[in-house]
Amino acid sequence: MSARWERRDIVLRTNATGHQLTAPVFWCHGRNERPLAYVQANVHGAELQGNAAILALFDMLEKDPPRGSLILVPRVNPIGANQQVGDYVAGVYDFHSGQNFNRGYLYLTGPSRASSAPYVDVDAFAAVHRDATLSEIKDGFHEALRAALHAIRDSGVTWGLDARLEFALAVQELAVEADIVLDLHTGDRAPRFIYAPEGAVAATRAFGIPFVLEVPPRFAGALDEAAFVPWNDLSEAFKRVGRSDVRRSVDGFTVELGSMNTFSMAQGVEDAKRIASALKYYGVLDGEPDDPAYRIAACSVADYQSIAAPAGGLVDPVVTPGSPVRQGDLVARIVDPSRCALPPRSADSIIEVRAPEDGVILLFHAFSSIPKGVRLLSMMTKVKSL
Amino acid sequence: MSARWERRDIVLRTNATGHQLTAPVFWCHGRNERPLAYVQANVHGAELQGNAAILALFDMLEKDPPRGSLILVPRVNPIGANQQVGDYVAGVYDFHSGQNFNRGYLYLTGPSRASSAPYVDVDAFAAVHRDATLSEIKDGFHEALRAALHAIRDSGVTWGLDARLEFALAVQELAVEADIVLDLHTGDRAPRFIYAPEGAVAATRAFGIPFVLEVPPRFAGALDEAAFVPWNDLSEAFKRVGRSDVRRSVDGFTVELGSMNTFSMAQGVEDAKRIASALKYYGVLDGEPDDPAYRIAACSVADYQSIAAPAGGLVDPVVTPGSPVRQGDLVARIVDPSRCALPPRSADSIIEVRAPEDGVILLFHAFSSIPKGVRLLSMMTKVKSL
Amino acid sequence: MSARWERRDIVLRTNATGHQLTAPVFWCHGRNERPLAYVQANVHGAELQGNAAILALFDMLEKDPPRGSLILVPRVNPIGANQQVGDYVAGVYDFHSGQNFNRGYLYLTGPSRASSAPYVDVDAFAAVHRDATLSEIKDGFHEALRAALHAIRDSGVTWGLDARLEFALAVQELAVEADIVLDLHTGDRAPRFIYAPEGAVAATRAFGIPFVLEVPPRFAGALDEAAFVPWNDLSEAFKRVGRSDVRRSVDGFTVELGSMNTFSMAQGVEDAKRIASALKYYGVLDGEPDDPAYRIAACSVADYQSIAAPAGGLVDPVVTPGSPVRQGDLVARIVDPSRCALPPRSADSIIEVRAPEDGVILLFHAFSSIPKGVRLLSMMTKVKSL
Amino acid sequence: MSARWERRDIVLRTNATGHQLTAPVFWCHGRNERPLAYVQANVHGAELQGNAAILALFDMLEKDPPRGSLILVPRVNPIGANQQVGDYVAGVYDFHSGQNFNRGYLYLTGPSRASSAPYVDVDAFAAVHRDATLSEIKDGFHEALRAALHAIRDSGVTWGLDARLEFALAVQELAVEADIVLDLHTGDRAPRFIYAPEGAVAATRAFGIPFVLEVPPRFAGALDEAAFVPWNDLSEAFKRVGRSDVRRSVDGFTVELGSMNTFSMAQGVEDAKRIASALKYYGVLDGEPDDPAYRIAACSVADYQSIAAPAGGLVDPVVTPGSPVRQGDLVARIVDPSRCALPPRSADSIIEVRAPEDGVILLFHAFSSIPKGVRLLSMMTKVKSL
Repeated sequence: MSARWERRDIVLRTNATGHQLTAPVFWCHGRNERPLAYVQANVHGAELQGNAAILALFDMLEKDPPRGSLILVPRVNPIGANQQVGDYVAGVYDFHSGQNFNRGYLYLTGPSRASSAPYVDVDAFAAVHRDATLSEIKDGFHEALRAALHAIRDSGVTWGLDARLEFALAVQELAVEADIVLDLHTGDRAPRFIYAPEGAVAATRAFGIPFVLEVPPRFAGALDEAAFVPWNDLSEAFKRVGRSDVRRSVDGFTVELGSMNTFSMAQGVEDAKRIASALKYYGVLDGEPDDPAYRIAACSVADYQSIAAPAGGLVDPVVTPGSPVRQGDLVARIVDPSRCALPPRSADSIIEVRAPEDGVILLFHAFSSIPKGVRLLSMMTKVKSL
Repeated sequence: MSARWERRDIVLRTNATGHQLTAPVFWCHGRNERPLAYVQANVHGAELQGNAAILALFDMLEKDPPRGSLILVPRVNPIGANQQVGDYVAGVYDFHSGQNFNRGYLYLTGPSRASSAPYVDVDAFAAVHRDATLSEIKDGFHEALRAALHAIRDSGVTWGLDARLEFALAVQELAVEADIVLDLHTGDRAPRFIYAPEGAVAATRAFGIPFVLEVPPRFAGALDEAAFVPWNDLSEAFKRVGRSDVRRSVDGFTVELGSMNTFSMAQGVEDAKRIASALKYYGVLDGEPDDPAYRIAACSVADYQSIAAPAGGLVDPVVTPGSPVRQGDLVARIVDPSRCALPPRSADSIIEVRAPEDGVILLFHAFSSIPKGVRLLSMMTKVKSL
Repeated sequence: MSARWERRDIVLRTNATGHQLTAPVFWCHGRNERPLAYVQANVHGAELQGNAAILALFDMLEKDPPRGSLILVPRVNPIGANQQVGDYVAGVYDFHSGQNFNRGYLYLTGPSRASSAPYVDVDAFAAVHRDATLSEIKDGFHEALRAALHAIRDSGVTWGLDARLEFALAVQELAVEADIVLDLHTGDRAPRFIYAPEGAVAATRAFGIPFVLEVPPRFAGALDEAAFVPWNDLSEAFKRVGRSDVRRSVDGFTVELGSMNTFSMAQGVEDAKRIASALKYYGVLDGEPDDPAYRIAACSVADYQSIAAPAGGLVDPVVTPGSPVRQGDLVARIVDPSRCALPPRSADSIIEVRAPEDGVILLFHAFSSIPKGVRLLSMMTKVKSL
Repeated sequence: MSARWERRDIVLRTNATGHQLTAPVFWCHGRNERPLAYVQANVHGAELQGNAAILALFDMLEKDPPRGSLILVPRVNPIGANQQVGDYVAGVYDFHSGQNFNRGYLYLTGPSRASSAPYVDVDAFAAVHRDATLSEIKDGFHEALRAALHAIRDSGVTWGLDARLEFALAVQELAVEADIVLDLHTGDRAPRFIYAPEGAVAATRAFGIPFVLEVPPRFAGALDEAAFVPWNDLSEAFKRVGRSDVRRSVDGFTVELGSMNTFSMAQGVEDAKRIASALKYYGVLDGEPDDPAYRIAACSVADYQSIAAPAGGLVDPVVTPGSPVRQGDLVARIVDPSRCALPPRSADSIIEVRAPEDGVILLFHAFSSIPKGVRLLSMMTKVKSL
């Protein structure tokens, strides 16, 4: 029996000439409504590869209908995707508000910058549901989160709905339903890596992605956090009333599928397999997840550190993203020809950049010429095996 | 005896071709080093009028040397001022980081997003200085704030100094010395108004500016807050150890000198008079501050509310910025010609926008065509007389 | 009997997420199909007021149905209108190609940069139609121009249709039908003025707009030229075969309705009256055109000169746009505070700009801070009365 | 004996805060002043690799002093290099004027859009110099070109020097002295290729670059044309007065060193060798040029054709830039997920793009997501061996 599909187009922005910038939402109903996965791609305008992964998932799901269900949203951010100035897309920050498109989501169990509307008080919820079943708790909390989103939308009736809020609501009204949320991004120039909730080791391993950044359950505005932190907060609240059986039942991952400005349908098939393996772990798809044969390198996001360019100039990377380095290793050269005196020597134009600690160089800036003080590279430190 | 002047150029950014973008700092030493005023203009690239005010202050100070001293910095943000795309400057958000140039300052007595370096613990300071004189406390706290800035700069040695931090430090290393800090901005399309610390009524009145937004002592990243909140925190800490005589001795104001993209040397002379009156209040200049004859309308920033555009379209303001309105009054029309059916009628293109509350319309968006959800206007509500 | 209206939405661009950016075309069929006026607004994204004029024309045409017909296109350029970065719209140059949106039209009777497709050979046409009636000539030439547009569209089949060409075709396939073409723009900061074909004095006067720039019949890429130059070329070709009775029967005007970034529905009613007066002259509307009581100042576009800013800095205009000046008059100050030495004097920051010739200052740059060498202002010289 | 070096910094733009954006000019005086090579890099802001080539030339020239002389200008365009919005540089079109930085040079022997100043009349020059020696002709023409540049600079005295003209003059006042001009660019995503003057086969081969576009002697605004077309015009003028011995003695090349946004010091050493080989051909360096063993594919720029994207979407290239293709071959896919109906199939999102002719795919757009009608790729057709 094949899956049942629905399509709905959500509005992310209405522009100054009244055109609606929409994203297509494909809802794949499998044998069961749950577990439900929410998968979106391209929230940052120049991070394209997740779209190829979703397209490959379409074909995979048509061939092997899922056990649970999926909401799939390619090209979720038509605003960012069209912020093209000259050749390239400047797709991280909203041209209208400076807002990072992945930092404006709503914290539904605590105060967030994006909204002053009331949120779900997890302690009050836990008090009321102290004796409820796990299933009642899960359903009740889903209902409470939905109600919080409704209240936020309603709060816009008097003073209007801010564009950032409208964006966040359009996404979160879908994502709030899910048991697992995957936000498909890319690094700047990077191998595949993943932001995973602390403690979700087995699920994280199922992706088979060799680099992992572990995210603590604290809300900082991103979608993965918006998905799992409320459920973590709920679990903690139940612990405070003496119930330790209420585990976090929703996970959120930011999956970085290589570099900005790369797009390959062929690689999309491989990426879809990685995602499918994780979805098997969660029971959304039938079958067993893959177990990666190789070592997975992990560190906390607190130990994921960036080097600010020590000078403005051209960037000549010395190591490939994904390479382990030792403290003091040369990792990049910043090159400014105007530093040459007479006679000019190429060596005089170079500022060497060395690793401040042992670790793994994970990411270089997307562009090979940057001002002083802009992120040159980011590296994992205090790396462990997962 | 004339004032003694010094000039020093500070570097705000070094660009990708190695050029230093600098701002000229003019230090006017009067009869006494203190009180010291720090006055900067144009931190947002399109907010120009403060430069005219500073130029007029130059002439005024040369004619009437000050009792105290002043640091004057026109064109403090050469990055923002040169973010010109087409005809206009997009000068609020840093093209490199999306950061609002007036939200990245450092909170020296608490945790801030801009830096993870340690800050001054006001309670520890109060404990140590419980029996100190007010003068010792003031000097000691100045010294502690300076030390915090040094520590933040030093924190950049290993991983490099982030461009936003470099900007903040360049400004705050000057502003931290001052007893009064004036950050000269403009509204989008607005009359003159001012953000003033809660409680600084007499000083605020001295500006003679008819609209006032009162800022509570909570840090949100702006320079005025970065200036006065640490001293407010200090005062509170001393209260906690039983001393109520340690009042906040530094004030910070954001002075909005009309609309973006206006610049008039003639008006600058008038603006300089407004500023001079406040500097007289603080004893930086000789003489008595003016006392405005007219009513000053004030509200808390918490009651300064914005209307998000209910539709994308052209903006036809109905009231002049600075006008009082009653709830339900028509304040603007959003016009989208594509809404016209057949036969087309201009009325069909119009979405009327009405005041949700009584108040004063203070500011319209700088541009007359905006997407849905972008700030159309901001208005004071719960207005009182100051 | 009321007019018969049709609406059709034309596609100007399909963006990277597949959304069509369209403009609404309102076709008002009056008592006769001809004379036919084509009126569009806002081809430059920040030039808004023409939309108000068109909306007012809607109401006027519904009240007084026209003798001829009109095609009315507000918001004709949704690409430019949405090139908003920060507060303002950068709407003159296409972010993708650097192309001025009003310089990419097709020259249908000569070679143009926009297309290498064949054009109408007016001499061949005149040879063939040497003995035709004026009506046959007009119909035949309309048909020939249409065929040229078709050929250009067809030329895109093999290698694809360039985005600039697609834009030009969408507009010109409508405009080519018209007897009079009005392209509603604004100046940067300017009074109302008009670009009018050389020799069209009576029609030009009918607008009642006090400043006129006379355009010679030479194609430089703008829509007004694209409209009238082919018919001028035709007239010249007929002269070469000995017929002087074939006058240019199509006129094109670029009407500048004040300053960028202003929009007023009330002013739109006044602008519609100006346009209606001209349409009466052309017989599109019933009635007599107004005859302005005041002097109209005119010069050739060849005598419309610009001053490049002699320094980078803030702009303090000394005269109001539309003011007559004498050679040597102070017209603006460029102000750069970094020029101040010690003690700083405001006078040292100023570079005075004086009129190089007698004339009328017509336009200042839209922004009050500009780099060296950018157009500071434009002025009419060798001004005459029309 | 080592070379004698001079350094001078030229001003390309003075920005709105009065900062001069300069480029460093390194003049290497070898054993003879001539032949003189002018080599610049990075006129388009995102085309970086030429800087690495120039830095490697520094080291090479210090080791082996040249027979002639060289002017070397890395980072020649600090305006374009700093037009960074978000991650990437939009460096082709001037944000202020929409002008392609490589289309605004001055045509010194004919009318150009950049200036209305008088140019050198080659026929008058040939008439006067009919009996002059070749050396007198060369010196005299150099002098005439210099005088034309002076006249253009002087023409800015009254109305000011337009920013584009200031840029062109700064470059051309240096380049006009040279016998060979190399403008180091990159393609979007491309192998190394070269724009070479028609007929300069041996010199072109000396670069050892496998793809060549032959440029006819017609001025279209680029620097290579600005360098060699006047000398070609001179040669033609002498032919018209009966002297065929006056050959074009200046060549200009645009050398495309791979893809935008790549920068490698190691590859720069290889690029410097390619350039050095050509400079040996011209006698600027000692020694014999290399003779490439492999076939060089060439076509006229008239046969260098672009495919406009047939739809907006993501770009999945099927062939590697530099690949030969046959008419009908699949060369790229445009992918728009919103095209998927239900059930969604990846195939439905794809628009296939096929080669319209036989040829070589030379270049893909720099970004993997583009609107409809934007250049998707460019290919050589009617390819021959050089």
